[in-house]
This record gives sequence, structure tokens and C-alpha cells, in this order.
Amino acid sequence: MSQDRRGGGRRSKLGRSGGGIAQLPWQSVKNPYPPMQMLDEERMEQLHKTSMRILSELGIRVMSERVMDLFAKAGAIVDRESNTIRIDESIVTEALRKAPSSFTLTSRNPDKQVEFGGNSLVFGLVAGPPNVHDRVNGRRPGNLPDYQNFIRLAHHFNAIHIIGNQVVAPIELPANSRHLDTYYANLTLSDLSFHCTAIGRARAMDGINMMAIARGISVEEMRASPGVTTIISINSPRLFDDAMAEGLIAMAEHGQPVTVTPFTLMGAMTPVTLAAALCQQNAEALFGVTLTQLVNPGTPVMYGAFTSNVDMKSGAPAFGTPENAKANIIAGQLARRYNLPYRTSNANASNVVDLQAAYETEMATWGAVLGGANLIYHAAGWLEGGLTASYEKLVLDVEILQNMMEFLRPLPFQEDDLGFEAIKSVPAGGHFFGAEHTMSRYTTAFYQPMLSNWQNHGAWQEAGGKDALERATELWQQALHDYEEPVIDPAIREELDAYVARRREEIAANPEA
Amino acid sequence: MSQDRRGGGRRSKLGRSGGGIAQLPWQSVKNPYPPMQMLDEERMEQLHKTSMRILSELGIRVMSERVMDLFAKAGAIVDRESNTIRIDESIVTEALRKAPSSFTLTSRNPDKQVEFGGNSLVFGLVAGPPNVHDRVNGRRPGNLPDYQNFIRLAHHFNAIHIIGNQVVAPIELPANSRHLDTYYANLTLSDLSFHCTAIGRARAMDGINMMAIARGISVEEMRASPGVTTIISINSPRLFDDAMAEGLIAMAEHGQPVTVTPFTLMGAMTPVTLAAALCQQNAEALFGVTLTQLVNPGTPVMYGAFTSNVDMKSGAPAFGTPENAKANIIAGQLARRYNLPYRTSNANASNVVDLQAAYETEMATWGAVLGGANLIYHAAGWLEGGLTASYEKLVLDVEILQNMMEFLRPLPFQEDDLGFEAIKSVPAGGHFFGAEHTMSRYTTAFYQPMLSNWQNHGAWQEAGGKDALERATELWQQALHDYEEPVIDPAIREELDAYVARRREEIAANPEA
Repeated sequence: MSQDRRGGGRRSKLGRSGGGIAQLPWQSVKNPYPPMQMLDEERMEQLHKTSMRILSELGIRVMSERVMDLFAKAGAIVDRESNTIRIDESIVTEALRKAPSSFTLTSRNPDKQVEFGGNSLVFGLVAGPPNVHDRVNGRRPGNLPDYQNFIRLAHHFNAIHIIGNQVVAPIELPANSRHLDTYYANLTLSDLSFHCTAIGRARAMDGINMMAIARGISVEEMRASPGVTTIISINSPRLFDDAMAEGLIAMAEHGQPVTVTPFTLMGAMTPVTLAAALCQQNAEALFGVTLTQLVNPGTPVMYGAFTSNVDMKSGAPAFGTPENAKANIIAGQLARRYNLPYRTSNANASNVVDLQAAYETEMATWGAVLGGANLIYHAAGWLEGGLTASYEKLVLDVEILQNMMEFLRPLPFQEDDLGFEAIKSVPAGGHFFGAEHTMSRYTTAFYQPMLSNWQNHGAWQEAGGKDALERATELWQQALHDYEEPVIDPAIREELDAYVARRREEIAANPEA
Repeated sequence: MSQDRRGGGRRSKLGRSGGGIAQLPWQSVKNPYPPMQMLDEERMEQLHKTSMRILSELGIRVMSERVMDLFAKAGAIVDRESNTIRIDESIVTEALRKAPSSFTLTSRNPDKQVEFGGNSLVFGLVAGPPNVHDRVNGRRPGNLPDYQNFIRLAHHFNAIHIIGNQVVAPIELPANSRHLDTYYANLTLSDLSFHCTAIGRARAMDGINMMAIARGISVEEMRASPGVTTIISINSPRLFDDAMAEGLIAMAEHGQPVTVTPFTLMGAMTPVTLAAALCQQNAEALFGVTLTQLVNPGTPVMYGAFTSNVDMKSGAPAFGTPENAKANIIAGQLARRYNLPYRTSNANASNVVDLQAAYETEMATWGAVLGGANLIYHAAGWLEGGLTASYEKLVLDVEILQNMMEFLRPLPFQEDDLGFEAIKSVPAGGHFFGAEHTMSRYTTAFYQPMLSNWQNHGAWQEAGGKDALERATELWQQALHDYEEPVIDPAIREELDAYVARRREEIAANPEA
């Protein structure tokens, strides 16, 4: 955890059990089950048609001249007075024809390449909270040391596949250059792919440049083998802001994947009905998807969904609700209709890592998995509706994700797995503890949890009677203790250092640089 | 909660919101989605064939002469020396032809009739723990006042459809007659159907007789309209005990539904592989199902599953594991193959109402729902692997069940629900809080949770910063305060009193009576 680890990291062993904590090896997760079809074809068509009416009759308001030019050139109706772009279905169809149905992200460790599309399932670290919390040190504003710790945890826990946008904002650092510090932490403390902050062109380009340096390839080479990604939010309803547009364009121009995610809380940013929210989400997402293909045909692009409801008593956002679970499933049907990879989330709205945090996260996770999600964003560490990154929540989430990974693992089904001979070998009323069939399999037969405690009540109390939250604290402390910094070529580290130093100066001289 | 409530219960309003606690109305829950098919037809056939080999080549050991006679008469090979019954597939097939594919249970309140079969989903109260726990009074042995409180809570919370077998054992009462006290509590403090203790014939008959009295009908009339049920466990592997057999026979003779549930923890009572555990579970369940039809063709019978794993380090039972979730799904495929209603559970193995209790329960609940369960037994209040009935866990579970009920509610999908006009009415970047479309729907658009708190962090802290566990304590206290005892005809109460008094005397004179 300290500075001195940076230089002398021992070699990270891929798939090791992670120090003292039992965990699953790094793996590409596949969902072998067909996604749930919550709506029939007729209703899906109704959603689609209404979305197309929203795009062609109401349009999307944009702030960027560049975006208006691109759409005008493609045949859209651009009203420069109201900054509104209206597009026909044919323009969307043409864009969808060009967008790939899957793509990969390759980090500086090629063994940790992740695929988006098909039945692949990728878990991303929480992104964006201004605050951080753990049970030892309490709630505090985001800062670089905590940022670095979260990156260490994301590297240590194999269930986390990619780093999202700024797990906590290091607010003690200058706003215009802190992305350099977070990218640097991502690239030196982990070997995972990450999400660039695509607010404006410069931040996106810094992410692209630094990943290329870390991989020892050119930005041009990275075009064919993307290394970073970003999520472009739509300011629902129907508003696409300038900085986001610039970020999207920079990413797309360089062939780096973009996810377009409308921020659609039912009753606030969309109508109160789920069907309407999905129509609006779909229109907004397809607008962004279309833009990526107008910028650079063939750009990898993911269909993003973030539809949940608000508490109608207070207007506060709610997550992990039944409505959110349904939205997660139907949004997957929409993404597949357009042959696009699908991103969603498994958020919760609890203020503390408690029962609510657990059951809301489970509800949303199951919705995402049943919906055939390819990326579950914010999958580890999200608390307080996204306002806090939590150490204990990260541990809880890794356990939830590992349980899901095991649920998705196909059943062994060889003749011997059917166990007739084993059953024959044990008398009626006997037990199988010592049977050869058991002994030869027992170490790997079942998922071995990290957080669950299965002691009987007496033994559990004897051992201190710690509940799962207390154990979660011990687990992140243990993980930080066991963490091994991934090796990096000193020449590459020097190049990264030099890049950051140069860019820091440029930004200090000209904050818009 | 006190004795004096018994006399003067106010009229219970079906579907009321439950005093101060927001809850869903009493309802028959339907699962509108097709169950998950985790195994293909070929693999299902392998499970079936292996089960049939277990029944015909290895057989089931039974202690009851009566059971051996029944099977011998049906053509099974009965070895009276080893007490083993071996049966051919044809005998099973013939029994399955006679078993109904669904049935109903009618309590003394006909509005609370519950259906088992098709896509109905019934939630049962936890059954069987010797201990009880709440955060105020700690952990203690089961006793009648706590038993009564749990029945009040089961009556109060609309998500609980039926009462399982002895939610806690009132161990201060004589073992041979305490079932009279618990049945009496079930029938006077609630208006739900319940589960008879079918250990021996007498306890089953008392349940049947007392429900008939409470409904004001004869035992003969109840044959055509069952009012109580029971679960017959198999002592896996392949052992069927005498008392259970007597209970099953008494229930079947009187046309009351029976669920046959092998107690199959992988690695202990079955081989360590899930495929083998399912083969064994299936053989044992079908043996019991067949027995019900030999006793009384047409007896309603449910396929029960309780397959989970043990902790291979300690041998302790584990629940809500990925393996348990898979078992819940595949067991449903088996039950449907035989055209039988399907019972499973959503247990957890935590020692305390914590994150683990929540995520393990969620895992098992989703497995059960995706598996097309018709009955989720132990659905509210199960803790410590079934050794403790917990007040706070009951509240957590009711919230989890209500969330699931809302998830299963089909989406409104009228033209107006698609919301084009509503979207048109709000400018880009605006909000929908005050829109007419929102205002006319906002009170009912979303599920209103009982336990979740969606305040922002400041408001939540201002209000005391209570976590969900603390709120759960307040909620069961509030529920007991708000509880209204259901009205009962004084003549019926007198008859129940007289029945219990008479039987208590008979049992005191002859414990086997």
C-alpha cells in the first residue's frame, strides 16, 4: 500500500488464490443460459416504433456544432435555432449495420483481455462517487490514496475485470489534471483495462495515449486492438451535452469503444411508466450509437441502460428495485434486437452496507444476468446511490459476483457425475463423507465462499461471533496486505512519468489543453 | 400480543395496508415467465434413468410393514429381511398417472385459498427451528409466546401464504401434545392454512380434525377441499422412517396434500456431485409420491426438493449457494417432467441477520423462482441453517418476497404507458415530476418498499442513521402492535377448545393416543 511497493512489486501470478483469501481465478465469464424474454416480439416492436417516433418527431437537443454537422451530412433534420436533431429510422439502421456486434479490450496484460458481446459477462469497478467510506475510517471526500487502494483491490480481486471511470474523485488534486493521476494509478497499480474520463477531448486522448504507452504500442496500433473505453451519458430527457460529445468523438476517431448510456430515472428524467422509460432510453441510446458510426464507421459501441425509478415521496433515486430488475432484462432484449453488446448496472440505494445494500444489489444483479448483460458496470463498491465508494461493499460485491460466476458455470455431467455407483456404495441411512467418489472431488466440488461463514452457532460465537460486515472489513484489509503490484517495464514507467509531467505542465499553462 | 387480544379482535381487513406498515395486499402470486431450462432433454433423461435404476436396483429401506404391504401388492420386490423395497418404472408411471397436477388448500378464510401447481407461487413461514431470536431479547429456546407471535406476524404480513410445521417448537410444553397448542394458535391467531406435524398418525389426524372444526365442515367434506398439508422428509440416503410413513398414510387416506422432500445435502446425504444428488433426490421423492397414490389414488402430492451442499471443511450445511440455486432450478424441471407441483426453499446458513443472510436468501429465492417453484417453504424467518426462527429475518424475507412479487407482476403496456405524448410534453433537459402523466400514476407506479430507505445520506443521518437491521426490529414491533386477531365464531372456538382439552387428556393418559 505504500510508495515503496511501487518499485519492487513481486510477480503477480495470474489465477493464484490471492494471498490468504480464497477467491476464484481470473476468468472470462460466460453466461450459458438464454436471456430472459420478458416482452414478446409484438411489444418489443411497440417499444422500437415509439423510440423511432421520439427520434424523428421530437429529436435530441445537442450543443455541439460538430455533431449537428455530422447528422446534417447523414440526412437528418437539424434545427440550428433550437439545436435539435431529428433522425429517421433509416439513418439509425444504416449506423447499426456498421457497428460490430462484439469487441475486445486489451490491457497491458494480454491475459486479461475482456470481451464484450455474445454471452460474455464483464464486471466493472464502481465509478464516479465523490465520497469514500470504510468502517475503520468513516466517510470522507474522495482522495488519491483511497483511489489507489481501490485500484489495488480491483487488481487483487479476480472477479473485477475492468476499472470504471474514477472510482473516487481525488478532489485534493487540480480538477483539470487529476485524470492524469488516476490513469497513472490504473496503469501502475493494476494491469486492467480502464475507462477514460470522456468529458472533453483532452481527457479522452490522455487515456488513449497513456494506455498505448503502457502497452508499448502506438495509438494507431491501438485502433485495431482497443485498450480503453468510455461511457457517454445522455442528460435525459433528450439532451446531449458538448463535453460528452467531444469525448465520444475523440474515442470514436481513435477506434476506442464507447458505451452510450441514457441516465433515465423513471418519474424524473422519463415518464413514470417503465414502457415509456424504455422507449426514451432506447431513442437516446440509439442516437449516441448512430453518432459513433457517423464519426467513424465500425467503431465498437455498446448499448447502455441505466433505467431505474425514483422514490415518488422524495424524488430520490432508487436502485435494485423490481422495476430496475425488469428494466435490466428488457434493455437486454433491446440491445440484442440491434445486435449490440449490452451494458447495465447492479446498483443499490442504501446509505450503509447493510441488508438493503445486499438485497437491492442482488435484485439488480439477477436482472442484469437474466437480461444477458455483457458489462455490469459499478459492479463492485457502489454505495449511497453512487455517492460513495465503499470498501466493505466492494468485498460484499465480489462475493455476490463470485457466487454468480459459479451459478453460471455449466454442470459437470459425465457418467460418473451421475453417481450411481457411489449411491450403491453407501447403505440406506448412511453418509457419503468418506466415500471415494466424495474424497476424489471434495476440494473442488463446491464454490468456496470468501465472505460467508458456515460454522455452527457455537463455533461461530467461539470464534468471535463476527457478522459478515465485520468480516468484510477484515477481508479488504487482508487483500490490501496481500496485494502484489504488477510488474511494469521500467522504461514504460519512465515514459508514463514523462507523459504525465508534460501534460501536467501543459494543463497548468492552459487548463483547456 | 397479550392474552386479552384473543377475545376482542377487530375485524381483519383483507388487503388493507397493514396498520402503519406499507405492504402489498394479500394476493395469489403467479409467475408469468417460463421456468429456466438449465438441462436439456437428453440430460433430463439421464437423470430420470439413473433415478429409475436407483429405485429398481438399489431400492428404498422402509420400517413400516404397512408400506411394505402396499408396495408388495402393487408388484414391487419387497425384501422383508433387509426391509428394502425395489420398484420398477411402471409402478412409478402408474402412480404419476393418478396424481393431480395441481391442488388447492382452503383455510377457514376462503378468500385466502392458495393454489399449488401451474404458475402459482406460494410462500410459507419458516418451520422447525428449536430456537428463536430477535435483537431485543436475544437467542432463546422455542416457546409458546414466541410461537404465537410468529403466527401473528404470518397473519399480519400478506406475503406469507401458509404456516409451516411449528415455526418454533414450544419446548416448555409436553412433547406429545404441544402440536395441539400450535394448531390452536394457527387457527385462532391467523386464518391461514397450515402444515400438520406428520410424525405418526395421531398428530396428523389432530391437524385434520381441528382444521375441519375451524372451517365448520366434516373431515369427510374436507377430503374434497383440503385444508391442511404436510411435508414428509426422506432420511437420505434411501431411508423412509416409520413415523413419517404413518403420517403420510393418515394424510393421504383423508385426501390431504402431502409433499415428499428428500433431505439431500451433497457430500453428506448424497454424493458430492449435483447430478448424482438430483438422481438420488428424484428417486426418493418419486418413491414417496408413489406411496401416496398406493394409499389413496388421486391424493394431491407435491414434488419436494431440498438439495444443497455442505461445507466440505466442516461438514456443516450450506444454503443459498450457487449449487443450491442450480438444484432449485433443475428440481423444477424434474417436477414438471412428472406433472407434479413443485416445492423448494430459499434457506441461508448465516448465524445472524447480516449481509450473508440476505445474499444467500436472494440466491436461493431466485433459483426457486427461476425453477418455477409452486411453494417456497421456510420463506420467512429462517436463520442459522434452520436452527433459529428470527423476527428480523422474517421482516427481511417479507421485503425480499414482496420485491419478487412485484418483479413477477406483468408490465402495464397500454398505448398511454408507452408515453410518447408525455415525452413530447417535457422539453429536452427538463423533468417529469410535475407532468400530468406522472401525477396521475405516481402513487402506484412503483413498488413502495417496507424495509428499504431511500433518503439521501444527510436526511437519513438526521433521522437517526438506522441501518436496515435496526429498521427490521422496528417493523416487527410495529407489526405486532398493529396486528388484529381474525374474528372467529365463538361456537367454533368452543369446539376447538373442547377438542384440544379432550385430546390433551387422552394423550396424558396414553402418550401414543
